Amino acid sequence: MKVLIIGAAGMLGRKLAERLAADGRIGASPIGTMHLVDVVSPPVNEGRPAVETEVADLSSQGTAEKLIAARPDVIFHLAAIVSGEAEADFEKGYRINLDGTRELFEAVRRAHEADGYRPRLVFASSIAVFGAPFPERIPDSFHLTPLTSYGTQKAIGELLLADYSRRGFFDGIGLRLPTICIRPGQPNKAASGFFSNILREPINGEEAVLPVGEDVRHWFASPRAAVEFFIHAATLDLETVGPRRNLTMPGLAATVGEEIAALERMVGPEAAGRIRREPDATIAGIVAGWPRAFEAQRACELGFEAETDFDEIIRVYLEEEGGGSAV
Amino acid sequence: MKVLIIGAAGMLGRKLAERLAADGRIGASPIGTMHLVDVVSPPVNEGRPAVETEVADLSSQGTAEKLIAARPDVIFHLAAIVSGEAEADFEKGYRINLDGTRELFEAVRRAHEADGYRPRLVFASSIAVFGAPFPERIPDSFHLTPLTSYGTQKAIGELLLADYSRRGFFDGIGLRLPTICIRPGQPNKAASGFFSNILREPINGEEAVLPVGEDVRHWFASPRAAVEFFIHAATLDLETVGPRRNLTMPGLAATVGEEIAALERMVGPEAAGRIRREPDATIAGIVAGWPRAFEAQRACELGFEAETDFDEIIRVYLEEEGGGSAV
Repeated sequence: MKVLIIGAAGMLGRKLAERLAADGRIGASPIGTMHLVDVVSPPVNEGRPAVETEVADLSSQGTAEKLIAARPDVIFHLAAIVSGEAEADFEKGYRINLDGTRELFEAVRRAHEADGYRPRLVFASSIAVFGAPFPERIPDSFHLTPLTSYGTQKAIGELLLADYSRRGFFDGIGLRLPTICIRPGQPNKAASGFFSNILREPINGEEAVLPVGEDVRHWFASPRAAVEFFIHAATLDLETVGPRRNLTMPGLAATVGEEIAALERMVGPEAAGRIRREPDATIAGIVAGWPRAFEAQRACELGFEAETDFDEIIRVYLEEEGGGSAV
Repeated sequence: MKVLIIGAAGMLGRKLAERLAADGRIGASPIGTMHLVDVVSPPVNEGRPAVETEVADLSSQGTAEKLIAARPDVIFHLAAIVSGEAEADFEKGYRINLDGTRELFEAVRRAHEADGYRPRLVFASSIAVFGAPFPERIPDSFHLTPLTSYGTQKAIGELLLADYSRRGFFDGIGLRLPTICIRPGQPNKAASGFFSNILREPINGEEAVLPVGEDVRHWFASPRAAVEFFIHAATLDLETVGPRRNLTMPGLAATVGEEIAALERMVGPEAAGRIRREPDATIAGIVAGWPRAFEAQRACELGFEAETDFDEIIRVYLEEEGGGSAV
């Protein structure tokens, strides 16, 4: 089996590539080659499959064609510029997130028409396709009314994916990922950064800033759960999914207070003591427009699973990233 | 006020242009010029405003730029290839219905950035953005899961319209039109054609074929109601609409049996006698996947209005098209 990961240098792309390299297979199928592509050089993984890395911009003419020249059996399309950048640079957001996705889908369609090629295509979407106001728990049948250009571009990707799948050009599935927590690495300036920062930095013996109240509720899954989503999506029988190919992934609905209580339990009260409360009205305002919880009924029925409490989310971080000085 | 109608040779485009020419104004604003554009020559209307017609393909390079060169205050974007053709010709459907729409939106964005241009843009969408299975009455918050490429292209147009409006490039509003009934003219081969055929042909003394049962329920508005939707959308205060700029228009939920009963009342039993029942399993299957009724709560609250019974829909046809030999 040949695997192509587009966006392989991103946090989730790297973790997915590492996991596949370690497993050497997807479901029952051994992986022969892995092709890792991103706009910056993806790290090479040590493992059984032959790994080829490539620096390429999906939105540039002819790139998509070349990426599928070897006819990968499974394509993971994770490439995107993030919400903040897509909002700051309108043209770049549409070029990368919409045109890049469409170039890929079109290249697969042309290959399908030339030689019957029909890969599994797993698309990373986002809960940013939804926009406030929301019901307390958002049902699978809730409309897409994104309030960012990023969310708009992901929603359009979903619509294209469903239509191209319905037409039989590829066998696509779109996964609306929860906010990934705990993100490893450095604190970032994304408005959502604090959800990870207030756990990761204290675990690593550093101070972190909490800009919102402890009653703020949001929707989370660990990076490991996200990687499991992608792998499950690659092996799922899509006949049972039907034409509605975009699924809200399961997650954990939890408050900031619940995050902090789990940090105390899992790491200790001194870790929780490293959180500095600095209310920021701007961030609080942005976060107030975010979803708090989803039903994710279809995805759960199809066997997708996320963490069920924040202790588990912290445990995943400690296992995958080590714990720094505090553990 | 300058008005641009793209898709002005279509059935609704023609009726909208005729109505605006007759009114000479939109709301309180006199119309100075009307620019009527389509891929075939739009009819010239007699009326007060100066009318310019043009044959142009929105999806061809540079066309959108030229169409907005005079900076129309209101743009009605009705141009599209229909559902059947978009399904039969995948590339043409995406080129006209998606790329054409995006070219227009991009041309307005560039003009906005050059000189602050910010027109009202009224976009004709469709209930084809929805796909079965449905609840009996579809709420405004129901998700978009189109089951045709046409519906996909309209849904993408809606998402772009909302994002471009949110960004302030134009002041957009999308109208999801019900099935328009009674369509004037010749019977057409669209799967939905019989809803109009079984009224129009008998009114004109001709036979018509009914391929489905009388219990089939669907969602209708007259051509006159659709024109009223467009005009109301052009004058509505969009501040009150907020960021959810795409609205399911009100309509009449009625069965085929109710259509026929109205035909008997309005025209006579001999007209209803001209309907020949020829069940067609293929058409019945297609129609079974169509929506039956919508709540359309937001649109109603915003003052959009449709017919409330089929007698009224037939009366509109008799007034606008005359009644042929049977009346």
